[in-house]
Amino acid sequence: MNEIKIFCPATIANLNCGFDVMGLCLEGIGDEMIIRKVAEKGIRITKITGADLPLETEKNVAGVAALALLNSNAINGVAIDFGFEIEIHKKIKAGSGIGSSSASAAGAVFGINELLGRPFTKHQLVDFAMKGEAVASGCEHADNVAPCVLGGFTLVRGYNPLDVIKIESPSEIYAVVLHPHIEVKTSDSRAVLSPTVTLKNAITQWGNLGGLIAGLYTKDYGLIGRSLNDVIVEPARKHLIPNFDKVKNVALQNGALGAGISGAGPSIFALCKGETVANTVAKSMSDAYADTKIPFDIHISKVNDEGTKII
Amino acid sequence: MNEIKIFCPATIANLNCGFDVMGLCLEGIGDEMIIRKVAEKGIRITKITGADLPLETEKNVAGVAALALLNSNAINGVAIDFGFEIEIHKKIKAGSGIGSSSASAAGAVFGINELLGRPFTKHQLVDFAMKGEAVASGCEHADNVAPCVLGGFTLVRGYNPLDVIKIESPSEIYAVVLHPHIEVKTSDSRAVLSPTVTLKNAITQWGNLGGLIAGLYTKDYGLIGRSLNDVIVEPARKHLIPNFDKVKNVALQNGALGAGISGAGPSIFALCKGETVANTVAKSMSDAYADTKIPFDIHISKVNDEGTKII
Repeated sequence: MNEIKIFCPATIANLNCGFDVMGLCLEGIGDEMIIRKVAEKGIRITKITGADLPLETEKNVAGVAALALLNSNAINGVAIDFGFEIEIHKKIKAGSGIGSSSASAAGAVFGINELLGRPFTKHQLVDFAMKGEAVASGCEHADNVAPCVLGGFTLVRGYNPLDVIKIESPSEIYAVVLHPHIEVKTSDSRAVLSPTVTLKNAITQWGNLGGLIAGLYTKDYGLIGRSLNDVIVEPARKHLIPNFDKVKNVALQNGALGAGISGAGPSIFALCKGETVANTVAKSMSDAYADTKIPFDIHISKVNDEGTKII
Repeated sequence: MNEIKIFCPATIANLNCGFDVMGLCLEGIGDEMIIRKVAEKGIRITKITGADLPLETEKNVAGVAALALLNSNAINGVAIDFGFEIEIHKKIKAGSGIGSSSASAAGAVFGINELLGRPFTKHQLVDFAMKGEAVASGCEHADNVAPCVLGGFTLVRGYNPLDVIKIESPSEIYAVVLHPHIEVKTSDSRAVLSPTVTLKNAITQWGNLGGLIAGLYTKDYGLIGRSLNDVIVEPARKHLIPNFDKVKNVALQNGALGAGISGAGPSIFALCKGETVANTVAKSMSDAYADTKIPFDIHISKVNDEGTKII
């Protein structure tokens, strides 16, 4: 096997109460990548479609993630005397808030690991992918790459060393994602966050995060819904997204378990129990967004428990 | 059945990363109470041994909790035309940081509920017990009463309405509690806490809280241990407890999964996997405390999955 085609899914990070630690993996929305084993050593990005991204390996998240893997001195102690070409076919729009750069980073390391005969575990791949992600975001974060690589829901317990826990999704959870075609600069969405929070709000937030984790393990959809609240980040960021409150409210009124900002936005997500509710919620969110006159697209997806995969 | 004897266990609140939300229930350390159904209406505290506490019903946590239950208009719609006498035999020292007042509140509502034929669920009893707890602490908190009533580990997801999740303890978890005989005033232990925390520390804390919950559900002792960290409250409070760092360090060096301040202190707790480790850890903690010349007692206990019970 010298060439494989990879599906690299979109992801939702934060999930209200889990700022910087929680994420989930989507189905049906994602990039495609082709990874090819070649004689020439090193990593080359040979083709990019669907986005205007740098072909230089060291400036491209997929390239940097791939190099992190290749430069690891742990590949069973075996020197790699060949190289890899990477084609990236972007479907996830950059800056949409559903893990576009993470998908590229995850796809690269997943694909190369497959072609090498899987010397690394999926958890190790998250670590390499995070190095690539850092090219895009400026710092090493795993809240999108972890669910992209591992699938399901993921919790980043901590860093130094990276400690990621995968939690299988309760089977009936569907996500709805509405992506307004506006740009929210990451610098803006970071700038609105206060570097301090009240202890009271922090306690509320970690009570909810605990509830979300408990709800996922016990498949208690009611508890999951009650836990999907954010008293810290959403209040500071939501004004950056036109009609956010209206869209969130109609989602909840139509039976969503919870709704919030996907990653740093501008995408708005809702989690629902069952496909029927998800369809109704998606319709209501679309209707509520239409009066902004801002173009948008909307996706309905089960949680993808597999993560990045060969197609 | 007109009279029952109750065991009301001690509890450890906070558990490092779970300030104000987490707790666990101990075995073998606890108060005893006798609850007696009598013809005269109302609640009377007839006897208290082991502590100097008020006999007036409205000033006693057990009395107030009992009244909260009796005054609930939900007892199957049936008027209560009799009353209850309560004897309290304290074994848990007040101000020890292992839920002394919560035990009294929990015992009262548990016992009365039994004598009434269990009109209330255990989760409802937590709500009544919390009203009693408020007499002692000045505000309604459930982080000790919840594990005392329900047993196991408990998460208080939130209030308004009270939302408590019980998590069964992994079978090999043992707690060690060292209680130094010093007074740490609740007002002092509250006063040292800053009303604000950094967002960075809050994220670290909720990542760990998520890890603790995940570790409990998956019985992953390593994950439980990695999660038992507190970057917010312990650093602010530990100077109130002589030799805290030394005791914590020897506990960890001797194999404890984690260690920290029990509730608002001054008790120091450690969690261990297995009784053998717990014995070693208890010995090391005792030795490390001995050079303070402060008298102390030490307890080793499995997590009590039953909570308050009839004996």
